[in-house]
Amino acid sequence: MQLIQEQKCFGGRQIRYQHDSAALNCSMQFSVFLPPQAEQGPVPAVYWLSGLTCSDENFSSKAGAQRVAAALGLALIIPDTSPRGEGVADDENGAYDLGLGAGFYVNATQAPWDKHYHMYDYVLNELPALVEAELPLNGRRAISGHSMGGHGALVLALRNPQRFVSVSAFAPISHPSDCPWGKKAFAAYLGEDRQQWAQYDASLLLAALGSQLPMLVDQGEADNFLAEQLKPQALARAGEQADAALSLRMQPGYDHSYYFIASFIEDHLRFHAEHLRGG
Amino acid sequence: MQLIQEQKCFGGRQIRYQHDSAALNCSMQFSVFLPPQAEQGPVPAVYWLSGLTCSDENFSSKAGAQRVAAALGLALIIPDTSPRGEGVADDENGAYDLGLGAGFYVNATQAPWDKHYHMYDYVLNELPALVEAELPLNGRRAISGHSMGGHGALVLALRNPQRFVSVSAFAPISHPSDCPWGKKAFAAYLGEDRQQWAQYDASLLLAALGSQLPMLVDQGEADNFLAEQLKPQALARAGEQADAALSLRMQPGYDHSYYFIASFIEDHLRFHAEHLRGG
Repeated sequence: MQLIQEQKCFGGRQIRYQHDSAALNCSMQFSVFLPPQAEQGPVPAVYWLSGLTCSDENFSSKAGAQRVAAALGLALIIPDTSPRGEGVADDENGAYDLGLGAGFYVNATQAPWDKHYHMYDYVLNELPALVEAELPLNGRRAISGHSMGGHGALVLALRNPQRFVSVSAFAPISHPSDCPWGKKAFAAYLGEDRQQWAQYDASLLLAALGSQLPMLVDQGEADNFLAEQLKPQALARAGEQADAALSLRMQPGYDHSYYFIASFIEDHLRFHAEHLRGG
Repeated sequence: MQLIQEQKCFGGRQIRYQHDSAALNCSMQFSVFLPPQAEQGPVPAVYWLSGLTCSDENFSSKAGAQRVAAALGLALIIPDTSPRGEGVADDENGAYDLGLGAGFYVNATQAPWDKHYHMYDYVLNELPALVEAELPLNGRRAISGHSMGGHGALVLALRNPQRFVSVSAFAPISHPSDCPWGKKAFAAYLGEDRQQWAQYDASLLLAALGSQLPMLVDQGEADNFLAEQLKPQALARAGEQADAALSLRMQPGYDHSYYFIASFIEDHLRFHAEHLRGG
């Protein structure tokens, strides 16, 4: 992996890397924040998955997470939201919710998407192996994300509880099998097999598998996408049935933007730090 | 003034307004953050002036200032960096450092700039009168800014010490009469009369007028523009000669970006809050 930019931030290092991804079959960029504590020894990492249209730069520049990560000694690992590059398929109409910037953290099985769109494998396996080999990380991981990335964080953690100590999300697409964004993406990437869809639906996974993982979800009540796309009630119902450690906090007045994320990112990083310190 | 967007942020309100500016002879947008304390009564305000190419949105989304402003009970008033709109003159080659996005906080005297480019009057008079009439502000003001906006903040405060209780800057263009950005802009906006230029040069103003104002300046040592464009040493020398209350802090490793601003904005807002609370 090749360092392409480094900037000092809250005493730590905000870095952008480029590498050739085997999982995605293309060149990728991602961002990392290393806190000052990483100069002394390996630190735990919080993976952040962003939402539709984002790259690794939105969270890096807008969430204010580095201040808290520097205080707590956490690295932040921030991948892009889809494969990238000229040879990578995109929606033919350039839709914002399919193709580039909209990988939905699945392993696509349908052409033309199956050639590059394997964000599930990329975030679960390739990226952690890469950064843990190259950077001062201690192998302890938590995961969080926003909207499509909140969906990704929940799915990755619920299916792989041995890989993450805790999971959180901001305004996640909680039940993608039953909302327009999810149905469109899953039909394109996975075809019509609903068994496949269920492997990428946090509400269905939580109901089917249960979970002992600590889970924190924040949802703004003034979020324009709440009723049609996000459906946190489905996740809450599955969590109750499974007796999961899910804390769903409805936040009055907050919308879907980074102003919402910035307002509560400290709570999420402190939640993860508590679990990352244990063990 | 017309509210065009409002988003909840750290318990307060991040708002974007549009209005017809008499000083600038065009329609303008600006952003405001009102802290939760503004629900109970009028609060003091910190004016923030942004740098080249910025609008009111860069500081709003990238500096992380709302968290601290909410904790301290400060409003943030964030104007654009130049007049805007189709009828407003721009550099004929679209240069980033002249015309749109590059108003340099002066009152232009030269055609074609003199028709709209009166950012000095706009920030000093029209904008405060407008927001203090319409919003819960108590009339106590501090001012800060970055790069071109740090220049603007220093010039406005040094020439009008009765209007601001304190001034700060991040990587200000400290001696614009003697750097490429400043010479280009001043020649265009003000012509070749160096007496005019001196009215907008913080180092010359501080040497000529002195100052009792509390002044805080942060400058990254890894800032690419430091030696050629920013020249904080000129300001420091003038401050020493004038026995001014100037604290210039050189910050090792930091560059010119918002990661630098975000890392130290809390110090600046706490500095201003201390002075805004007095009197």
